[in-house]
Amino acid sequence: MSRTLPVDLGERSYTVQVGAGLLNALGETVAALPHARSAVVVSDATVAGLYGNAAADSLRAAGLETSVLTFPAGEASKTLATYGAILDGVFAVKPAVDRRATVVALGGGVTGDLAGFVAATALRGLRFVQCPTTLLADVDSSVGGKTGVDHPAGKNLIGAFHQPQGVLIDVTLLKTLPAAELANGLAECVKHAIIRDRVLMEFIEDNAAAILRRDPAVLEDLVARNVAIKAAVVSADEREAGQREHLNFGHTIGHAIEACAGYGTILHGQAVALGMVAACRMAVRRGLIEPDIEQRVQQLLAALKLPVKWPGLSPAAVWQVMLHDKKARAGQVRMILPVMLGEAAVFEDITPSAVEEALIAIAG
Amino acid sequence: MSRTLPVDLGERSYTVQVGAGLLNALGETVAALPHARSAVVVSDATVAGLYGNAAADSLRAAGLETSVLTFPAGEASKTLATYGAILDGVFAVKPAVDRRATVVALGGGVTGDLAGFVAATALRGLRFVQCPTTLLADVDSSVGGKTGVDHPAGKNLIGAFHQPQGVLIDVTLLKTLPAAELANGLAECVKHAIIRDRVLMEFIEDNAAAILRRDPAVLEDLVARNVAIKAAVVSADEREAGQREHLNFGHTIGHAIEACAGYGTILHGQAVALGMVAACRMAVRRGLIEPDIEQRVQQLLAALKLPVKWPGLSPAAVWQVMLHDKKARAGQVRMILPVMLGEAAVFEDITPSAVEEALIAIAG
Repeated sequence: MSRTLPVDLGERSYTVQVGAGLLNALGETVAALPHARSAVVVSDATVAGLYGNAAADSLRAAGLETSVLTFPAGEASKTLATYGAILDGVFAVKPAVDRRATVVALGGGVTGDLAGFVAATALRGLRFVQCPTTLLADVDSSVGGKTGVDHPAGKNLIGAFHQPQGVLIDVTLLKTLPAAELANGLAECVKHAIIRDRVLMEFIEDNAAAILRRDPAVLEDLVARNVAIKAAVVSADEREAGQREHLNFGHTIGHAIEACAGYGTILHGQAVALGMVAACRMAVRRGLIEPDIEQRVQQLLAALKLPVKWPGLSPAAVWQVMLHDKKARAGQVRMILPVMLGEAAVFEDITPSAVEEALIAIAG
Repeated sequence: MSRTLPVDLGERSYTVQVGAGLLNALGETVAALPHARSAVVVSDATVAGLYGNAAADSLRAAGLETSVLTFPAGEASKTLATYGAILDGVFAVKPAVDRRATVVALGGGVTGDLAGFVAATALRGLRFVQCPTTLLADVDSSVGGKTGVDHPAGKNLIGAFHQPQGVLIDVTLLKTLPAAELANGLAECVKHAIIRDRVLMEFIEDNAAAILRRDPAVLEDLVARNVAIKAAVVSADEREAGQREHLNFGHTIGHAIEACAGYGTILHGQAVALGMVAACRMAVRRGLIEPDIEQRVQQLLAALKLPVKWPGLSPAAVWQVMLHDKKARAGQVRMILPVMLGEAAVFEDITPSAVEEALIAIAG
């Protein structure tokens, strides 16, 4: 059984399939693309070891010439150097890759971003299919078309928008996901609930234990609900002019916390959780939401093994990073704050002292 | 005096301005973009030495924070490594570049392709204005939105489509262009004439001497006529599904000749001229055109100091490269051949022996 969710982007529309065992459908999905001839699977060494053969078997069984290219696992690989190495691999494939090739991202967000940027730019654009293997990639990065790599000056500074031809989410792959990475994805699920869907909030609260023990039926439901939210936002606003910006809830501060801590020392989901806690704190201070909502958010994050405090944060350093975020304009920081459970808005009058106070609460 | 030519691409439409002294209008052109704040000029060291100050002065006079980034001149710079170095320069600009920045390409085709790829991918897409300084860039690469770099496996294997917000062509900059590079551009002008415009063919025949002595009025006329052709083709067919493919006339063989000779040992325009001569030969052999047209093409190329023969070519090696071109499909080579003066068509039944015979004629 699986569910099919449309992502409506005009001529670039595609569907996201969510279900158990979908990795076995990869071959037929790619083979169904017009004139499909070959596939290049991009995966990190860890995921390739777990699922690379299954993916390649499915592709080959569907008659596609198939190569598997791997790179070292981890965010540290999300660089122009790895991107260049993967391109070297793509152009070393024999027979030579042409425009009938499909790049398949098999892995988490780093893999999707790297493979997507390769797909966006090899021969000025190859077809792209995502097989996310982490909850974070399932509910967030695999939908929306953002691809790219980090630069020493900041995260995601280099990249392109490149929509996939399809996304296959096999929730059984989450069985092998480390607990810390599951928590990364859960932070985004809680984000979606806070900014868009109070029913999802209740669903996660009611099913926290089943989620943590990876119940496939509950995971399918969780992923489908979250993909639907992400897809609706992306469909309405492909290039982030309007409501797509709401997806930055928890991320403006979260990214800055990640940068200050040094990438790799704090998980993205942990940083987003802290960013959401800080944003809720700021929203309470402004009188936008009642303190009980802040409380409920913190309780849910804790139940999901996500942090609500992070001792040792430097509020001043975080603020400096926020000021230099690529989305900041002329020293003005924009933030998304909740205005009720299930609804958020953009605020442009963010002051250093408001951020500082919220961060002191987190650090305390 | 200048002429304004529209490139109609829906919401990505822009205009090309052609005239004498337009570099002085660069600042006001960039400043007129919404929320324009800064400009990053990308130029090779040679062109930066000639025109970098004039460009920067114009931008600064219009109130824009302006940086100039340079790289070593030449096709050998069209690599991922140079692309990465330019991105390093973009992200080192203080105050930090944000989405209100415009990347300005000041130079020839290599500069436009590199700067365009940087613009396409820095912050997932910055605005882009082209100031071409070679005839080849004027009439060809500055219109159409193709950006990218070479890879050891082949030319232009990595890149993106990224339309500029505007193109400013100052024909007085052609005064400093080396004769060999002028010839590069003239090859594309002859190509446009053969595939689309017999009146342009007569114009070039009548004005060959004035063109070679860089008469500004004649150059303005020549460039405007050619931009109009390129813009019409690109507007009708942004992503090269149909008639844009006609622009490959002379290039299927030309690119293969370049690859066999080794990039840098033969000029692009020389290779294209040879490719056009070979294609005309094949067209005569198939009975598509009369021998007098082949003759006329060769005479015009010679009058423009372009080669019609290239001793030492290996037909077999050229064919192998053609088979592995990214546009080849399953070992089937497609070529554009003239069917009359001013009209061309795609042919898919190209045989090794037909190519070989034409190349032997060129090499003879």
